[in-house]
Amino acid sequence: MTLPASWTHTPPCPSEHYRQRALERQAVLTKPPGSLGRLEEVAVSLAAQQGTDQPAVDQVHIGVFAGDHGVCAEGISAFPQQVTAQMITNFTHGGAAISVMASHLDATLEVVNLGTVTPVPDLHGVNNLQIAPGTANLAVEPAMTKHQVCEALRAGDNVADQAANAGAQLFIGGDMGIGNTTSAAALACALLAASPAELAGPGTGLDAHGVSHKADVIGRALVRHGDNREPLTVLASLGGLEIAALTGAILGCAARGIPVLVDGFIVSVAALVAVRQQPVVREWLHFSHRSGEPGHRRVLDALEAHPLLDLGMRLGEGSGAAIALPLLRSACALHNGMASFADAGVSNKEA
Amino acid sequence: MTLPASWTHTPPCPSEHYRQRALERQAVLTKPPGSLGRLEEVAVSLAAQQGTDQPAVDQVHIGVFAGDHGVCAEGISAFPQQVTAQMITNFTHGGAAISVMASHLDATLEVVNLGTVTPVPDLHGVNNLQIAPGTANLAVEPAMTKHQVCEALRAGDNVADQAANAGAQLFIGGDMGIGNTTSAAALACALLAASPAELAGPGTGLDAHGVSHKADVIGRALVRHGDNREPLTVLASLGGLEIAALTGAILGCAARGIPVLVDGFIVSVAALVAVRQQPVVREWLHFSHRSGEPGHRRVLDALEAHPLLDLGMRLGEGSGAAIALPLLRSACALHNGMASFADAGVSNKEA
Repeated sequence: MTLPASWTHTPPCPSEHYRQRALERQAVLTKPPGSLGRLEEVAVSLAAQQGTDQPAVDQVHIGVFAGDHGVCAEGISAFPQQVTAQMITNFTHGGAAISVMASHLDATLEVVNLGTVTPVPDLHGVNNLQIAPGTANLAVEPAMTKHQVCEALRAGDNVADQAANAGAQLFIGGDMGIGNTTSAAALACALLAASPAELAGPGTGLDAHGVSHKADVIGRALVRHGDNREPLTVLASLGGLEIAALTGAILGCAARGIPVLVDGFIVSVAALVAVRQQPVVREWLHFSHRSGEPGHRRVLDALEAHPLLDLGMRLGEGSGAAIALPLLRSACALHNGMASFADAGVSNKEA
Repeated sequence: MTLPASWTHTPPCPSEHYRQRALERQAVLTKPPGSLGRLEEVAVSLAAQQGTDQPAVDQVHIGVFAGDHGVCAEGISAFPQQVTAQMITNFTHGGAAISVMASHLDATLEVVNLGTVTPVPDLHGVNNLQIAPGTANLAVEPAMTKHQVCEALRAGDNVADQAANAGAQLFIGGDMGIGNTTSAAALACALLAASPAELAGPGTGLDAHGVSHKADVIGRALVRHGDNREPLTVLASLGGLEIAALTGAILGCAARGIPVLVDGFIVSVAALVAVRQQPVVREWLHFSHRSGEPGHRRVLDALEAHPLLDLGMRLGEGSGAAIALPLLRSACALHNGMASFADAGVSNKEA
């Protein structure tokens, strides 16, 4: 059982030098000060993270992590469990939302199957790890062994390593796993000492009765788990294979100085686990959107995160982050391309 | 004094047939129903507006309208008035925010100078109309003659005509005019029977004292103007040359079946005038962002508009709409490119 180095080592900090230079540049561009709003913060953060005067997010690596959840035995999802494996095929054939967006954005897309109930055939573009045929039922026993968690964390770290080797300027992680909002809500409840009723939501489409049942299932899991908040233990007890891999990918990106654009509820919970393990990870994160899944708000608050978009999306796969990526690209284009008052011969406010 | 036909004629309605077909398609794509949130509405609206199964906003025409404001004599702006003309040069040299974004988005950019205090030299890419050397001071007399308003409306209509002839699939209007948040707030107050204190804001950067003075100036203008809400009269009394041109462009686009992506406070006020004149225009509008300018909220409410972005931007020039354009493009890419459950062999919710 070997943990990746990014689990145990503090990641680097973004560059304060380049942050200051970027702030100075924003102040002299031909616009009223502050008038680009949040886009100014985005450009300044990226400049600091990338250690450059010319931040860019043209080269983007998207890693989608898939896995099944034993807790589906409790009847907590609106979709049948075989959809996880079917969607892996859909990712590679280009028909899923994240596939369409990866092509639209000219980003590289990598799919990692951590472990499905239905076996997935060999497919081009899928790393078929099959650590286990899905997790155990977290309502009655730990979802994963520590060994399985470590394998999943290492799978995520490997994707971060590939992203770094390919020169990625930004990483987007995505999830696929029928039942995974139950696991994510359970993780968030354990880490934040929140109640299941507060964090359980409709996921892919439960009605009010289904949400109430889901909260009961999470409640049983939390009673079994107890109040241990040590990240590795929480992850093993209540996590999913794909959520652990996402945690590993986020830690791995921070360790390698790659900024991460966080997707919705599932990826935000993975980010929360990563930040609890290594708080400096927070400085490498951008938050793309506020999901329609109600538990997301509480997780974002814990991360002091203010996502760029709030469009009622709740699809997963990294799709919300992909939708938000053009905002980061526009922020960079404006930061790098606008003229200064002096260069353009435009009178400044004080003139 | 000839008004454009789009002022007096009701525009067409978007296609109900293609709206229904788009709704049916969204229901069978491989995602939980509704999980793309607002992007689903955007794709469905564009399909109806464009009368097609494959909506697209690749061809985008941006028209930026510039003009000066006599009300600057009252000291209501943080920037000197010559900036309007200086920024026109900056637009053509590529250094302004909207120039950077037009290039970044591969959109065509056209600049129309309706009339500045400082003469603008002949510049490639600028239509130098100079209807008047800025408006009169709306605090003491009508800002424009009816003849000037008609000329400005026709200038906007001409840009819509050029956009249609160039095959534009979407139009973005932008504004440049030192002092124009005073004019826009006055217009909104007159049309919505709102108080100047409610709608006056900092614009390019007034402090609290400056905002209070600006509200007083708007109050004097409203007393002079009286309670006439007839759109042409209100526009002449309180408008700006560039705001009238934006109104003409929006009416002209609706008349020609071109959807419009509305920018921030100034363009939203122009849209409000257009909708008051021709209510069907509302069906051609998408709203890009909620501006940091406080009066915007009231105008959006009156238009029953829920913008896609809320990032604290308040730059004008059409920049907020340009920043939001990739959301529309992503909505189209997903609508057109995703697989259906049947095509992908993925089990649906009911399976």
